[in-house]
Amino acid sequence: MRRAVARLYSVADHAATALFAIEGARAGVLAGLDLLGILVVGFCTALVGGILRDLLIGDVPPAAFRSPSRIVVALAGGALVFAGSRVFDTFPAEAFVLFDAAGLALFAVTGAQKAIEHRSNGVVVVILGTLTGVGGGVVRDVLLNRVPAVLAGDIYATAAALGALGVLVATRLRVPGVVALAIGFALCFGLRMIAVTFGWQLPHVA
Amino acid sequence: MRRAVARLYSVADHAATALFAIEGARAGVLAGLDLLGILVVGFCTALVGGILRDLLIGDVPPAAFRSPSRIVVALAGGALVFAGSRVFDTFPAEAFVLFDAAGLALFAVTGAQKAIEHRSNGVVVVILGTLTGVGGGVVRDVLLNRVPAVLAGDIYATAAALGALGVLVATRLRVPGVVALAIGFALCFGLRMIAVTFGWQLPHVA
Amino acid sequence: MRRAVARLYSVADHAATALFAIEGARAGVLAGLDLLGILVVGFCTALVGGILRDLLIGDVPPAAFRSPSRIVVALAGGALVFAGSRVFDTFPAEAFVLFDAAGLALFAVTGAQKAIEHRSNGVVVVILGTLTGVGGGVVRDVLLNRVPAVLAGDIYATAAALGALGVLVATRLRVPGVVALAIGFALCFGLRMIAVTFGWQLPHVA
Repeated sequence: MRRAVARLYSVADHAATALFAIEGARAGVLAGLDLLGILVVGFCTALVGGILRDLLIGDVPPAAFRSPSRIVVALAGGALVFAGSRVFDTFPAEAFVLFDAAGLALFAVTGAQKAIEHRSNGVVVVILGTLTGVGGGVVRDVLLNRVPAVLAGDIYATAAALGALGVLVATRLRVPGVVALAIGFALCFGLRMIAVTFGWQLPHVA
Repeated sequence: MRRAVARLYSVADHAATALFAIEGARAGVLAGLDLLGILVVGFCTALVGGILRDLLIGDVPPAAFRSPSRIVVALAGGALVFAGSRVFDTFPAEAFVLFDAAGLALFAVTGAQKAIEHRSNGVVVVILGTLTGVGGGVVRDVLLNRVPAVLAGDIYATAAALGALGVLVATRLRVPGVVALAIGFALCFGLRMIAVTFGWQLPHVA
Repeated sequence: MRRAVARLYSVADHAATALFAIEGARAGVLAGLDLLGILVVGFCTALVGGILRDLLIGDVPPAAFRSPSRIVVALAGGALVFAGSRVFDTFPAEAFVLFDAAGLALFAVTGAQKAIEHRSNGVVVVILGTLTGVGGGVVRDVLLNRVPAVLAGDIYATAAALGALGVLVATRLRVPGVVALAIGFALCFGLRMIAVTFGWQLPHVA
């Protein structure tokens, strides 16, 4: 049972990595980057959130560097976009939103759980969970020379923060680890999808 | 006596954190960010200089993450700006300049002292003191997609570097720690205020 | 013999540091930065690639901080540009390209070798070698608020990656360290110079 969960998690983690790399690489294509630039922004979008989290909790080399598999998946995602850019154009935008929300939720809750394991305080758990989910996209946007979308746009990082908070509260209430992750996942994924569906936005200063 | 100094320092440190967060958050409001974006740039402005310093000297998790208090203060500063943006508009600009110079001086000298305690060489002490003072603002400006003000503008990072240098020289001359901090503080704060008063600028290439 | 190699390496390393600092500082002059800004972008261009590599492999404080010499060389390079900007304008552009390719190759192969010594897997060795070579320039471009040239332009990071790959393969084949470095250096330098000469570019999405 435990092994099955670990296996499921590993598959989901690699799938989310591939998806984030594909999304990042597509942004690179639109920005007119060359093949290497596309691979780099795909890599950053997929892996840099977790790398920053690991640097901040002192877990170095970062987890993403300890085996080549996630890096290879991220680079393969970028290469796929480069080779078959037009194929991706035909995918419905809704599919991207759906899978992206799932990837965001997965990264946010596992980032939060790792911060808890490293005995971070509650505020830091929420921050590091959120950073794991959105940090890669922020760095991608900085490299593409624009204000990170998560700082100005719709409810995205907020969903990641809610998911991380869910994991934190559930863990404090001694809910078992997998269940705590599931709760956080549902909160993040749910809020994100509801926000997209109804066009919810965070308030701006009037 | 020692305890009184530590208490005074802690109060000053939290006050400077709040002030930097408020200034950063105001830049976020002007850039049209949403609530979360405003909190993030406030957080970055207040805390990222010290976090980068700690990563570079290998003191992880960074000091800012070890207790929630400074993070909470930084986020509260950002929330205050969001809630009462118009109130801050009525503050005289001179007050901001004054308090900002004090916050800069405090961060620069305490950053330098921490680098000294970690046995950094003199050049690194000055760099890390300066980074503690201005690093958060640099990251804020990068996130807001503009050239960091400290690289092109008036005498700001230079004042931080002078303050850090003051701490370094005083410490090498075996001046007691608190006095060394006071000397560095006076140098940084003094240079910054004089530069603002007289419109001093660093030279540009003709 | 061993000592002569170490001495040669140290001289080359400091020469490459100075050159990268000069190139970075010149970009700062063109961007209208003040003296401090010019020093900062020179410093970043020369040293930040190696600093990021060291943070990622957990070698802190980073090597660049352990003695003041490379920092002083980087700052001196920036000061030289500030003081004698017009002199550098008279240098033929070809000389810069040539020396820059040598500096890139040196940083990439020594970065790769350090990653190997820290038991990074092969994919990470290539990534960290490339990062050592191009990371400083990426941060410089982010500070100057533009898309990093290496992501969109000609064959530059690709040459660094090839050089790092050369070191990796040679080391796996049990080629002695200095020879492995020489092979990687020749590959990186050679590819870069050929690409410049013939105007080679990486493909873009049509």
